[in-house]
Amino acid sequence: MHVQLTSHSHARFTPLPLGHVSLRGGLLQQRQHINRTASLKHGYRMLEKAGNFNNLRLAIGQGEGTYSSKYPFLDSDIYKWLEAVMIELGRAPDAELEALADQAIDLVRAAQLPDGYLNSYYQFHKPAERWTNLVADHEMYCAGHLIEAGLAQRRATGRTELFDIACKFADHLVATFGPDKRSGACGHPEIELALVELYRETDDRRYLDLAQFFVDQRGQNVMRSQYFGPDYFQDRVPVRSAREVEGHAVRQLYLNSGVTDLYLETHEAALLSAQQSQWHDVTGFKMYLTGGVGARGDGEAFGDRYELPSKEAYCETCAAIADMMWNWRLLLATGEAHFADLIERTLYNSFLSGVALDGTHFFYENPLHSEGDRSRGEWHVCACCPPNVMRQIALLDHYLATTDQTGVQIQLYAAANIQAAVNGHPIGLRVDTEYPWAGKITVEIADTPTEAWTLSLRIPAWCSEFDLRVNGEAAVIDRVDGYAVLRRAWRVGDVVELNLSMPVRVIEPNPLIDAVRRCLALERGPLVYCFEAGDHPGMNLNDLRFDPQATCEIMPWVDRLGGIVALRMRGWLIDASEWDGQLYRTQSSHSVESREVDLVAIPYFAWANRDVGQMRVWLPQWYG
Amino acid sequence: MHVQLTSHSHARFTPLPLGHVSLRGGLLQQRQHINRTASLKHGYRMLEKAGNFNNLRLAIGQGEGTYSSKYPFLDSDIYKWLEAVMIELGRAPDAELEALADQAIDLVRAAQLPDGYLNSYYQFHKPAERWTNLVADHEMYCAGHLIEAGLAQRRATGRTELFDIACKFADHLVATFGPDKRSGACGHPEIELALVELYRETDDRRYLDLAQFFVDQRGQNVMRSQYFGPDYFQDRVPVRSAREVEGHAVRQLYLNSGVTDLYLETHEAALLSAQQSQWHDVTGFKMYLTGGVGARGDGEAFGDRYELPSKEAYCETCAAIADMMWNWRLLLATGEAHFADLIERTLYNSFLSGVALDGTHFFYENPLHSEGDRSRGEWHVCACCPPNVMRQIALLDHYLATTDQTGVQIQLYAAANIQAAVNGHPIGLRVDTEYPWAGKITVEIADTPTEAWTLSLRIPAWCSEFDLRVNGEAAVIDRVDGYAVLRRAWRVGDVVELNLSMPVRVIEPNPLIDAVRRCLALERGPLVYCFEAGDHPGMNLNDLRFDPQATCEIMPWVDRLGGIVALRMRGWLIDASEWDGQLYRTQSSHSVESREVDLVAIPYFAWANRDVGQMRVWLPQWYG
Repeated sequence: MHVQLTSHSHARFTPLPLGHVSLRGGLLQQRQHINRTASLKHGYRMLEKAGNFNNLRLAIGQGEGTYSSKYPFLDSDIYKWLEAVMIELGRAPDAELEALADQAIDLVRAAQLPDGYLNSYYQFHKPAERWTNLVADHEMYCAGHLIEAGLAQRRATGRTELFDIACKFADHLVATFGPDKRSGACGHPEIELALVELYRETDDRRYLDLAQFFVDQRGQNVMRSQYFGPDYFQDRVPVRSAREVEGHAVRQLYLNSGVTDLYLETHEAALLSAQQSQWHDVTGFKMYLTGGVGARGDGEAFGDRYELPSKEAYCETCAAIADMMWNWRLLLATGEAHFADLIERTLYNSFLSGVALDGTHFFYENPLHSEGDRSRGEWHVCACCPPNVMRQIALLDHYLATTDQTGVQIQLYAAANIQAAVNGHPIGLRVDTEYPWAGKITVEIADTPTEAWTLSLRIPAWCSEFDLRVNGEAAVIDRVDGYAVLRRAWRVGDVVELNLSMPVRVIEPNPLIDAVRRCLALERGPLVYCFEAGDHPGMNLNDLRFDPQATCEIMPWVDRLGGIVALRMRGWLIDASEWDGQLYRTQSSHSVESREVDLVAIPYFAWANRDVGQMRVWLPQWYG
Repeated sequence: MHVQLTSHSHARFTPLPLGHVSLRGGLLQQRQHINRTASLKHGYRMLEKAGNFNNLRLAIGQGEGTYSSKYPFLDSDIYKWLEAVMIELGRAPDAELEALADQAIDLVRAAQLPDGYLNSYYQFHKPAERWTNLVADHEMYCAGHLIEAGLAQRRATGRTELFDIACKFADHLVATFGPDKRSGACGHPEIELALVELYRETDDRRYLDLAQFFVDQRGQNVMRSQYFGPDYFQDRVPVRSAREVEGHAVRQLYLNSGVTDLYLETHEAALLSAQQSQWHDVTGFKMYLTGGVGARGDGEAFGDRYELPSKEAYCETCAAIADMMWNWRLLLATGEAHFADLIERTLYNSFLSGVALDGTHFFYENPLHSEGDRSRGEWHVCACCPPNVMRQIALLDHYLATTDQTGVQIQLYAAANIQAAVNGHPIGLRVDTEYPWAGKITVEIADTPTEAWTLSLRIPAWCSEFDLRVNGEAAVIDRVDGYAVLRRAWRVGDVVELNLSMPVRVIEPNPLIDAVRRCLALERGPLVYCFEAGDHPGMNLNDLRFDPQATCEIMPWVDRLGGIVALRMRGWLIDASEWDGQLYRTQSSHSVESREVDLVAIPYFAWANRDVGQMRVWLPQWYG
């Protein structure tokens, strides 16, 4: 969801309006282009094939066949897809996409009941029982995604058919839930952030109040399903007291996004401090190197501290998206660059791996080790991820820059045009870079007031050395909260050149992470790398060893995997056959046989785009 | 279940009849004594408290309150408890236990329907629906445990009330299921092994045929529940084609016990070869150092190869029991000592840890690492383990020795009297040993024919050096299939002295096990050791490091933890505080601070019998 704060929000940074940043090239633009041209049409076909559209038809008495209802939340996939389409239609017209979207919107409108209620599952199966199973049935979750899609329509295209449907449903919610009405909250958070955003768009305080009500309902330790307890639903501990994340990762992070949104509009300090504690819990104890979260498949849960197995890693694509959403709101609230650092880590690794380079195949899980039994599917039985990927990729430009009263902050680096304004004065920036493949970034001032203003450039946490010049001369900068800060009276044509030194980094894990003890991994820039079977013919990847003395060579692959930078280094291949069929033995002093081999690493996000095979992010360290 | 082969079984080894081995002292006898005097009476109280008995009363219209039915298999806990009580009443009278058992048997008898059917869950809840949900509802699983209890009664006490009830139910099964009757198999195997054993007791071929029928029903890839597929139920692959274990560990191993029983009576080679392949799959890829199996809590499953996390290890106590049952049958079928080696490993570690030293508290899960959040409970919501522990401990003597046509094999070492017979000639052996605390074992010939016969002594796989003397003189032995074999004309009073060298062993894991990479553990004799918080005050066990150069001192603790041998060695405590709140970093050349500390290890089975705290079996290796 695009965040558009109210003028009275309590934010350190303000996001730019939709359309004010446009990508001009590079990896992110490439992904956005494939999303627009391949993924969105694929999504429409899949929504038809999986029965999502037919469900709406059945609900209005027009469909044929059976209602597709392994899960009760299939409507939400339509809304997420519509949100993505709306953003793309706002970027540029596309008659075919628009026609597909209009068909879908017509269906949604036809299905809405006169009182505003809209949920094909309940309307078809049990119309008299709406709102009777808030914990399990996702009615408000679906409503939230409808609201997000409606907001995207109005903000991106100026049309309001979907937005009007969403408001009508939101008004129904306002009429149904609240202090003197029904109580309870949805088992899957989402409505909270949607209602806050609807408040921002409409300035209608009732939506904010209802979001507040739902947030306050949580933590009564009563939500239970057949298999899961209150922790799964983030209902064990009240939102203001929760210091750790727990339970279903996507639910926790959607909730946290909504809670942070609420803080941004209400400035209630207890909300922010609880969120900050939870952020330290995630990043200090429950996150993969790729930014992936939700280690445990059972309950789609965060898991315990340091429970970060590589092969069994769940790391749902939706959790990566939710983590970006949450960190974006925390960044706006605090102005601290480490939230943007985390958006970058998650974006380039655990999120982008969720979609194939062709834009039409998707991972639900994003493990850091595969034995060759993983490949992306064109859709999923529980298809929350694919349309979520589509709306997130459509929105990538949203994360590039922010403003405050003093100037502009560049948060992510990509070739882009940025239109901002400071105190009503327009500012135009033209960013050029091959990031993430190279660390050189130039920012040309294309439009500026005569008054001085501040340009802040995030110095990524991964970067230990950089050089910053203005019009070719070394610049005097301040370092504030993770940004290099340049304040001056800019002139059109001024060029800022930031050179982020981008060596290959050898990464070691906290010794308390069992799963990767004495392993090493490679990073370069914001990218986590991995080793894939196709580059190591005849080798079992589990027998590879990482030589900490080896140096790493950078190899641009212009025409492979969409154009990447691969890495090559010396490593070792052990002969572990003496262990065949044996799990444990009395310690032996002799080392296993081994030979030197060439190791090739590719960016983690690009794995599983060639023949299906083994993959590892971490390799055990070589002990000679 | 006590195995008593038919005279025409195709077995290499024959087990001894119930009562022919009696423990005289030492650890196993100590556990058996506590089981008899504390656990069994505790079990009765818990079965009353948990509603198991009341369920039977409700089924016959006498109970009060509500039926206790979170699970449909609560009757089976009664039967397992009764099996244990029967074995103990056979060992020696106990009026109180007998009265408790008689009450229970009266209830069971009253609940049985005229046609032999007996299941309080169905009789109370849905009498018209019996056998309609074989996959989920455990009716035959309960029947199997009833049969086992009935067999124990007849064999141990000579009485037959329970045995008669069991036969009547078995006859009902025979009348209901079979090639020209109902098809299907129980979702939880158990009936198969029970029916084979009932055939052995009665020589009634119908029971064997029905066991065969149920085994042959498996593998049609049709068994499904709401959450689990055919793999969970061992229904994905037919029994003869299955080369790997999969799904729910206890179900797989109960099935395998029944299949091996079937092989023993039918000699169908395909059954045995599939079992042997599965054994290599378990022991080579899916077993903990403790002998524990079933790594994954989700689906109570074996998990993938090398998926052996220490902290998340499920290792259900029932799986340890099932593994002992299965290996016992494989040992009988093949005469290969490695099956007995595995019984020993599982018995002394993953099984014995399932029950507290007080005999009244039980673990369902037996992980190899705890953060201090684990303690044994007096019973469980799903209480399969506690009464299973009771019957298995009552039966421990069963595993001590076997015979064949040439002589006697001693399989496990404990102070015991053994009565056997070879070709009709009685043989008496008196074993003395402090095993597992010391490796010296003496076997005195108490009764022998004049003809030569063979005494075989298992040389445990853990033992690399031993000394064997007969009447004080070094003996010439053969080594056959893992046994030291002595053949001679024995005389009463001959003394065989076996000295198994029992040094402390430092154990290293297969490098493919992520969870314990570069860790080491301690073993001595058949015991796996662990480090527990109480012996390391003020230290975080996760900061301990194992110094591979350190030597280990043996410390008998006569009056602690029931009398054990503890180990002490030098180790290191690292100061990992520089990692606080950080999961990954660019590799650093400097080592963390550390200091030498004394490490104390206790046998794994004895953990969690003092204050609740951290525990680790594996410690990361120290790299100076």
